[in-house]
Amino acid sequence: MKTIYYPEKSNWGSLCIRPEIDKTNLEDAVKDIIDRVKTEKDKAVYYFFEKFDGLTSGSLKVSQDEIRQSIVQVPDDIKDAINIAKANIEDFHSSQLIKEPVTETVKGVKCWRKSVPIQKVGLYIPGGSAPLFSTVLMLGIPAKLAGCVEIILCTPAGKDGKVNPLILYTAHLIGITEIFRIGGAQAIAAMAYGTESIPKVYKIFGPGNQYVTKAKELVQQDGISIDMPAGPSEVLIIADESANPEFVAADLLSQAEHGPDSQVIMLTDNQTLIEKVKKEIEKQIQLLPRKEIALQALKNSMLILFTSLDDCVSFSNSYAPEHLIINSLYATLLSGKITNAGSVFLGNYSCESAGDYATGTNHTLPTNGFAKSYSGVSTDSFLKKISFQEVNQEGIKNLGPTIELMAEAESLYGHKNAVSLRLKSLRNV
Amino acid sequence: MKTIYYPEKSNWGSLCIRPEIDKTNLEDAVKDIIDRVKTEKDKAVYYFFEKFDGLTSGSLKVSQDEIRQSIVQVPDDIKDAINIAKANIEDFHSSQLIKEPVTETVKGVKCWRKSVPIQKVGLYIPGGSAPLFSTVLMLGIPAKLAGCVEIILCTPAGKDGKVNPLILYTAHLIGITEIFRIGGAQAIAAMAYGTESIPKVYKIFGPGNQYVTKAKELVQQDGISIDMPAGPSEVLIIADESANPEFVAADLLSQAEHGPDSQVIMLTDNQTLIEKVKKEIEKQIQLLPRKEIALQALKNSMLILFTSLDDCVSFSNSYAPEHLIINSLYATLLSGKITNAGSVFLGNYSCESAGDYATGTNHTLPTNGFAKSYSGVSTDSFLKKISFQEVNQEGIKNLGPTIELMAEAESLYGHKNAVSLRLKSLRNV
Repeated sequence: MKTIYYPEKSNWGSLCIRPEIDKTNLEDAVKDIIDRVKTEKDKAVYYFFEKFDGLTSGSLKVSQDEIRQSIVQVPDDIKDAINIAKANIEDFHSSQLIKEPVTETVKGVKCWRKSVPIQKVGLYIPGGSAPLFSTVLMLGIPAKLAGCVEIILCTPAGKDGKVNPLILYTAHLIGITEIFRIGGAQAIAAMAYGTESIPKVYKIFGPGNQYVTKAKELVQQDGISIDMPAGPSEVLIIADESANPEFVAADLLSQAEHGPDSQVIMLTDNQTLIEKVKKEIEKQIQLLPRKEIALQALKNSMLILFTSLDDCVSFSNSYAPEHLIINSLYATLLSGKITNAGSVFLGNYSCESAGDYATGTNHTLPTNGFAKSYSGVSTDSFLKKISFQEVNQEGIKNLGPTIELMAEAESLYGHKNAVSLRLKSLRNV
Repeated sequence: MKTIYYPEKSNWGSLCIRPEIDKTNLEDAVKDIIDRVKTEKDKAVYYFFEKFDGLTSGSLKVSQDEIRQSIVQVPDDIKDAINIAKANIEDFHSSQLIKEPVTETVKGVKCWRKSVPIQKVGLYIPGGSAPLFSTVLMLGIPAKLAGCVEIILCTPAGKDGKVNPLILYTAHLIGITEIFRIGGAQAIAAMAYGTESIPKVYKIFGPGNQYVTKAKELVQQDGISIDMPAGPSEVLIIADESANPEFVAADLLSQAEHGPDSQVIMLTDNQTLIEKVKKEIEKQIQLLPRKEIALQALKNSMLILFTSLDDCVSFSNSYAPEHLIINSLYATLLSGKITNAGSVFLGNYSCESAGDYATGTNHTLPTNGFAKSYSGVSTDSFLKKISFQEVNQEGIKNLGPTIELMAEAESLYGHKNAVSLRLKSLRNV
């Protein structure tokens, strides 16, 4: 971990640059997978199924029987925990369903927007070292609340050909039944273009490795919508003397254990805190099963001393962190100055893992500086807003001459004529 | 124009395919422009300025003096029309600024979202055959309402080196003063990466030709956000016997005059209407200055007869039109069944050109079937929603055990530890 004292403002830009990821050959490899699935469909999916997962037989779709078994396999205490998280996520994501008013902009001209669910969505849940059933909640619950008609889920099977029961149980609990045991770029391609077994969807959500991420990026160019661009996970903590070094260290490490490419940063106006946090990290990291991963991530990470908390906030806004924790007596005040962040955690008891699992906010968030222009996943992400307008006879009389003038000024006489004919017909009435 | 009677449902898919656009060599050409602007900045911009626009000298930034001149040049009646449109667009787009509630998901755990403006945005306004000052309103007004701090506008100059006064006047009226006389892929690249003269922005909006569209697509892969993918403009009209053939023909033509690649479609359950509309089109098209463009567009276009209005709606949902006009006695009823569309116009007096200019709704809309997953531009497009959570001591006591269980089940012990340490500290109090 680098410690940096009072960086010049002219150096902030370079400090905000994320660690480089080696993407050599990635695009060609992924393009190849996508093209193959696009043309050969299921045949290609089975080919990659064998090549990458070492599996040859069995239906791509997870059976009802396998789903039922998962209900028995998941321990009751985990079920209770999932239920609590589910209730909180539902609660917060329901609050995002807001009906907008009808506006009468001119007498006889009414305008409004209606939220309509994206009819078909695909959720991707990575396999690998940890079964991310929490992500099933974070994507599935808003999809259900939005009212998406067809919700499918793709997730890789283990070496035994089985999908992790925690993932199946959670999907079942929220009412997702179309689950496919397929991972990687081939899963993204299958959802984007459809195969004999796997339905085509209009928007694809979810995290994944570099292949998955690149595949989402490529199908997006073909008009398939995706949740947001992806990058390694990160946390930035603004801490002052009121912060608890033990908690700060634990929060930095909880992010660092995500992956070797994670980045964790602490900004402070208190030099003593830096030393205390360093010591705590050294102590706590020894006990982590994912110690090696965390150690790698810490190499990309920084503790930075600033002269004021305002400078900490300014730097944080330049960095645009995915997760921002503010451990300060002035947390509320400082939070009002935040312009770029994915999700913000206020005060010493708001740890990132609380939001990762159960406060109710979504954990699918813009990373890699994308928080400058992207929001995290929310119920909105599963909706489109269609605008409507109703112009009656009075409305076109009121607004018609304005439209005629503007259309003519843009040299669009067909546009003008559509109004002129209507105005003329009303003069004849 | 093709007339199609009672198409089989199995053929709907192919009828919904948009006319193919020849994009050969486009990507390489645009990549080249982007790379050059990215590395050589202003030098490259001036190079393309000379190459494509035939202009060599002068500042890229439009001077205050030139902007002031535009105020004199725009006739008063156009100014009045622009003011009316501006008021309506402001009215409707203000109604989209909704403050969301704070949700206490568990005692001691508060969650909320805050809308924060995207700090730096770039608007692109095409030049060419028509000065699209209406698009300045449609992009600039929501950007201002959202509170974007830096709003820049790029638009190509004419052969005389001047930007159209209508565009300058409109930009000035809504308070945009950073205007650059630069068009094409080089303008998109300049806004995406910044040059000595042109500031880098976080999100780029606006229509354009194939070069502009491709440039937006390519910079998006580099993490710069864009409003939406683009395609040729289109209208679909659902009309029954209550429709006025004169109005329907005028609306189809007003879309057809946009460009040779536009597509216009009428769906009806009334065979007589098809004949009447055809005759009206033949009559009206003779009077259009952009007749040749409209004739080209009509080659891509269709009049389709269905057995019922419900089938018309189903087909429309498969097509997902950018603009949907419903000329039917049952317009309100049918509109409730619309799942995919950009903007919907209800009744015989709601012509598309009304929404293009002045009802108050936005005219930057998802085309090419993208309405299945994208919304049109709105005030939301210029905002991010940052989520916040505040967990106090009581909150972590209530929610802590749930988080510990879930983190452990995902094998993320660092995540668990961040909670355990807090719970432990509270037991010691």
